[in-house]
Amino acid sequence: MNTFGRIFRITTWGESHGKAVGCVIDGCPSNLKLSEEDIQRELDRRKPGKKLTSKRMEEDRVEILSGVFEGKTTGAPISMIVYNRDVRSEHYVKLKNTPRPGHADLTYFLKYRHRDWRGGGRSSARETVGRVAGGAVAKKLINAFGINVLGYAIEVAGIRWERDSDDYHEVFQRAERSPLRIPDESVSERAEERVVELMKEGDSAGGVVEIVATNVPPGLGEPVFDKLSARLAYAVMGVPAVKGVEIGSGFRLAKMKGSESNDPIVIRDGKVRLEKNDCGGILGGISVGETIIVRCAIKPTPSISKRQRTVDIEKMEEVEIEITGRHDPCIVPRAVPVLESMVALTLADFMILQGLIPKSLSE
Amino acid sequence: MNTFGRIFRITTWGESHGKAVGCVIDGCPSNLKLSEEDIQRELDRRKPGKKLTSKRMEEDRVEILSGVFEGKTTGAPISMIVYNRDVRSEHYVKLKNTPRPGHADLTYFLKYRHRDWRGGGRSSARETVGRVAGGAVAKKLINAFGINVLGYAIEVAGIRWERDSDDYHEVFQRAERSPLRIPDESVSERAEERVVELMKEGDSAGGVVEIVATNVPPGLGEPVFDKLSARLAYAVMGVPAVKGVEIGSGFRLAKMKGSESNDPIVIRDGKVRLEKNDCGGILGGISVGETIIVRCAIKPTPSISKRQRTVDIEKMEEVEIEITGRHDPCIVPRAVPVLESMVALTLADFMILQGLIPKSLSE
Amino acid sequence: MNTFGRIFRITTWGESHGKAVGCVIDGCPSNLKLSEEDIQRELDRRKPGKKLTSKRMEEDRVEILSGVFEGKTTGAPISMIVYNRDVRSEHYVKLKNTPRPGHADLTYFLKYRHRDWRGGGRSSARETVGRVAGGAVAKKLINAFGINVLGYAIEVAGIRWERDSDDYHEVFQRAERSPLRIPDESVSERAEERVVELMKEGDSAGGVVEIVATNVPPGLGEPVFDKLSARLAYAVMGVPAVKGVEIGSGFRLAKMKGSESNDPIVIRDGKVRLEKNDCGGILGGISVGETIIVRCAIKPTPSISKRQRTVDIEKMEEVEIEITGRHDPCIVPRAVPVLESMVALTLADFMILQGLIPKSLSE
Amino acid sequence: MNTFGRIFRITTWGESHGKAVGCVIDGCPSNLKLSEEDIQRELDRRKPGKKLTSKRMEEDRVEILSGVFEGKTTGAPISMIVYNRDVRSEHYVKLKNTPRPGHADLTYFLKYRHRDWRGGGRSSARETVGRVAGGAVAKKLINAFGINVLGYAIEVAGIRWERDSDDYHEVFQRAERSPLRIPDESVSERAEERVVELMKEGDSAGGVVEIVATNVPPGLGEPVFDKLSARLAYAVMGVPAVKGVEIGSGFRLAKMKGSESNDPIVIRDGKVRLEKNDCGGILGGISVGETIIVRCAIKPTPSISKRQRTVDIEKMEEVEIEITGRHDPCIVPRAVPVLESMVALTLADFMILQGLIPKSLSE
Repeated sequence: MNTFGRIFRITTWGESHGKAVGCVIDGCPSNLKLSEEDIQRELDRRKPGKKLTSKRMEEDRVEILSGVFEGKTTGAPISMIVYNRDVRSEHYVKLKNTPRPGHADLTYFLKYRHRDWRGGGRSSARETVGRVAGGAVAKKLINAFGINVLGYAIEVAGIRWERDSDDYHEVFQRAERSPLRIPDESVSERAEERVVELMKEGDSAGGVVEIVATNVPPGLGEPVFDKLSARLAYAVMGVPAVKGVEIGSGFRLAKMKGSESNDPIVIRDGKVRLEKNDCGGILGGISVGETIIVRCAIKPTPSISKRQRTVDIEKMEEVEIEITGRHDPCIVPRAVPVLESMVALTLADFMILQGLIPKSLSE
Repeated sequence: MNTFGRIFRITTWGESHGKAVGCVIDGCPSNLKLSEEDIQRELDRRKPGKKLTSKRMEEDRVEILSGVFEGKTTGAPISMIVYNRDVRSEHYVKLKNTPRPGHADLTYFLKYRHRDWRGGGRSSARETVGRVAGGAVAKKLINAFGINVLGYAIEVAGIRWERDSDDYHEVFQRAERSPLRIPDESVSERAEERVVELMKEGDSAGGVVEIVATNVPPGLGEPVFDKLSARLAYAVMGVPAVKGVEIGSGFRLAKMKGSESNDPIVIRDGKVRLEKNDCGGILGGISVGETIIVRCAIKPTPSISKRQRTVDIEKMEEVEIEITGRHDPCIVPRAVPVLESMVALTLADFMILQGLIPKSLSE
Repeated sequence: MNTFGRIFRITTWGESHGKAVGCVIDGCPSNLKLSEEDIQRELDRRKPGKKLTSKRMEEDRVEILSGVFEGKTTGAPISMIVYNRDVRSEHYVKLKNTPRPGHADLTYFLKYRHRDWRGGGRSSARETVGRVAGGAVAKKLINAFGINVLGYAIEVAGIRWERDSDDYHEVFQRAERSPLRIPDESVSERAEERVVELMKEGDSAGGVVEIVATNVPPGLGEPVFDKLSARLAYAVMGVPAVKGVEIGSGFRLAKMKGSESNDPIVIRDGKVRLEKNDCGGILGGISVGETIIVRCAIKPTPSISKRQRTVDIEKMEEVEIEITGRHDPCIVPRAVPVLESMVALTLADFMILQGLIPKSLSE
Repeated sequence: MNTFGRIFRITTWGESHGKAVGCVIDGCPSNLKLSEEDIQRELDRRKPGKKLTSKRMEEDRVEILSGVFEGKTTGAPISMIVYNRDVRSEHYVKLKNTPRPGHADLTYFLKYRHRDWRGGGRSSARETVGRVAGGAVAKKLINAFGINVLGYAIEVAGIRWERDSDDYHEVFQRAERSPLRIPDESVSERAEERVVELMKEGDSAGGVVEIVATNVPPGLGEPVFDKLSARLAYAVMGVPAVKGVEIGSGFRLAKMKGSESNDPIVIRDGKVRLEKNDCGGILGGISVGETIIVRCAIKPTPSISKRQRTVDIEKMEEVEIEITGRHDPCIVPRAVPVLESMVALTLADFMILQGLIPKSLSE
């Protein structure tokens, strides 16, 4: 299943060290203004930064091959391609038969019995280029209906930032200035130091990303199985390295009393609103008109240069390996646009399903 | 979307205070031995216990209407019905226009503009009768292929039990003896006391449930969007009151170093295994042959007898309400068989997709 | 796959001689007025007539179990049940191991290896009760948006009626007065005589049914695989006994010249219209705003009383069988409401997909 | 919906005069030997012939971008691209606002309000390049399990060939030698003359194509909605210009008596077989183990050079147009590999669903 979505759907394809990676969007309404720059901007946000991330130089120039005519979508599938450059597979030859701990190497081998071992092949985070390309179009679409999807790190290497503002746009802007996408300069600096330390030890760090969607109308989400919460969990849990998901206050709610966790319903500016939004904008699986809040636990990058124990699956014997080559000591900041994309894709789908975005946008 | 699954699929229907609730299973292989007792047993596990749960007397006698012939499934849809009895709607009349905080009342109203307000209607946890009925068949099916799905509470009202054994079957048996389904008698007693206290205050408690699946073969899960982890997150996040999901060590992984979180790959009993299974049996979204571990955060029961602030949506004015009637002060133990069902349904689906369960079982 | 549709979806269940048959509708908008009478009316049209059809007395009283509150749909699944009465299985015991020619007996056995042989079990046309119940709701829904779906026989036992009017409503009314649903009294009488003859010979007849949908807006249908034409073909070809489908002039188009088959585009009453509509209201798979026309070839009832050659699948030897019991010598008139239902369900689905029917109807 | 299939799925993209067209295959088992030559061979069969078809020089070199490693599939999506060359859009500028009769121009405009008018854009038969590329892989896959899908024309411009042999492979070989893909030299020559005549008149011809699949195992197809017959009808009715579908003897069955249309069940070579296979290999929607037979009515090419009446949709006035440029006077022979592809894709899907093709082929 390399297709995501029910109506607004993306299909991604491509391997880390193959010819190219790409994405086909199906179900995008016609008459949406769209250019390669719209997509390039988001791909650039996913690129390795100057510090703390992989040194692979990914140019990642996107090309739109179909579905756009005279600067606007036509309703036909939008095919996008990014050619792979700067591909060096030599580091991987020696790991061909020794699945790297924490990676999908072992499970792909067990499932398919034939595996593109170059750079992780299909299971590489390189695949997320397609998600971000698709997400860029979803963002543009829902943005035309007032919705913004914004992401930032709230924890890296165990160092946590507590949200200090309800102005998510401002929080987001601050995060974009931090190499780790933490919305506070001093917290970010402390975390950076810790990540540099780990990198020097040949180790890596994980973290927690928060994605919010502002201005989401009420009514999105389908009872009882396609709840907005369930679809969001599905969307972000499918991103490489994600091992936990929370909606609103999540696991913290489990420790509260009912009288604490229940959101009082109030009238504000003539509208029915929730007083504190611990539910993360979702009640009974349906959006309530408050900011949607999703949090994702990201495990540390499994590619570390420390020696690790694994098995040679051909000789069936235990061995030790050392992973060389370029690797992000902390994938968290680069995961942000990927997770934003998955949330944006989910919302675009539900907006169309709910009849709030038409098949053809008015010109 | 009241249908769950791709090949082995259930469709549930029915409202809390309507005539009946039910489930139609589609895609179940033929030649599976199945009786009403198989389903009744699981429904009985979902029933209110003698203490700490709702006093509504739910007999919940299931009847199989189709799909079984001479004691075995035929491959045709299995329709199951449970008539609603002991239905008293009088408590709900006065709440018709005042959505209960923490409930789906408000969002259903905003989405559908016409709502069966009797006992929460479709959004009531009563709907999970259909899930448990469907889950009972999924369990029977995957059990025939060696897989067991087992659930228990690891936290209630903030009181946590730390796992003390790797023998999940024994842990499960212990849990089944506790009214809160906590696998330790003394922890359970402390939690019970706390829940009774909260109940007396007119308040309620939440908790955390852990679901494990033992003996799951490697190779289940589809890259890149239908990962086993993503589908499990989708499955359990769609259960009423669930606000967080973890696979394996989940959010704890985010704080670890890569060298700690990576599971060393070893050979044990001639098989490729993981040394510690922090990944919860899933790598790259695909099962690796270890125990699958999923944890769910459950918010406190929103129905509390304490006064709460809400809005009269007809008069558009803020009001206070008091919820009367019978309500579980802690839904956690009753959520266990529901969550087990969702995990079992997900695994049955993937076992068939992977070609490990045939369309027709051998007689 | 006992579920039909993408958004407006029905799941049917039940066997010919089981306890009941039924249908669950998912995705029906809220606020549609709906009563059991709405569904009963269509079920009655499917019932055996006084002459020329099966003598089984099917009362077929439908009961709505969920999804309707205070006379209007709530958006929740609508579960409907019809108990089986007047069920006599004794005729089928002797046919248990000898698949009836032209029936699904053999293929169900080959696929499932365990078969409810009583009256054809799941493969019986009895299953279409669920389709008609679902179709009744679809009809009511699209009718609220001006669309009518009307069916009639244009050929029975080789005797053909040529359409003599463009007033499809009047044609339909005439057909409803004929026991064979042929819209012309004298053609109908000739066909009836032929069918009676065949019945006396222990034989049966087939025919052709035409379904039209009037007032369908342009724009329904999705390129390139979910064309309206493709979905209609899928819908009606799945009805028991259908072996051919035409859109508009169908196979007759294959013999025309392009200059004959092309529909000139004209302006009529200020609207862009087609002059002759040989395309059956569909161009490039999308509705054009003209009447939708679908024609279905229905093979003769396979249950005939003449001796037939088959195989005893237990003993693996060729044998001859005689089918006794009650059987329609011509299923064509009873197929009409079933085929109408499939077309109505398809259109309801596309109307919602196209955003022309909202999630919640205005009160 | 530019995706076809449930498990083995293709997504096609691209416009007639855009940069490229392509196809992404998802769900193909791993370890299938696959090269660009395998696909090129089928694309070449779709190319315009030397006579009687469009003069557009389509090189159509396919490139595989992903999913194949060391000559074998990996289970990852297979992305294929064919760049568009020899694209001349000048003929279409003047038709921008005047939808061509018989084409999708009008309906695309009504649905999307923004249309790539160059060469029909997405609605051009150029899109079928993607289908044939996907079909080539499906054919290779099911061929490894003994199934062959073979197509030929049985009628062109009203001139019909009656099948004279049950050796479908020989019939197919003969058809491949005919420019119209009619399996009889003299019938083909007569039809060619008629087509040439029509071409000189500025007109075009349609016809009927028969697709057979040999050696299909019993048990494919899902009751009651995903019947093999229903899915095949869906598959071929979605191909441009198809307006009718028959399974087996199709509309001819409607005129027969039950005693004629029923296929006697016999034992041949120790196997349960049908004596005459009028049912086209499908009973009750499920394959019975006989040759699958599907027939498709193809309307004449709508692009004719004769003057035609249409409407200027900008000025809303009736006008006459003349279509210039290169057009096939008869699309029938080029439709054959497209229709074969749709049937092969459908069968591949059902073979996997039925568990007869594993996720990973044995090496």
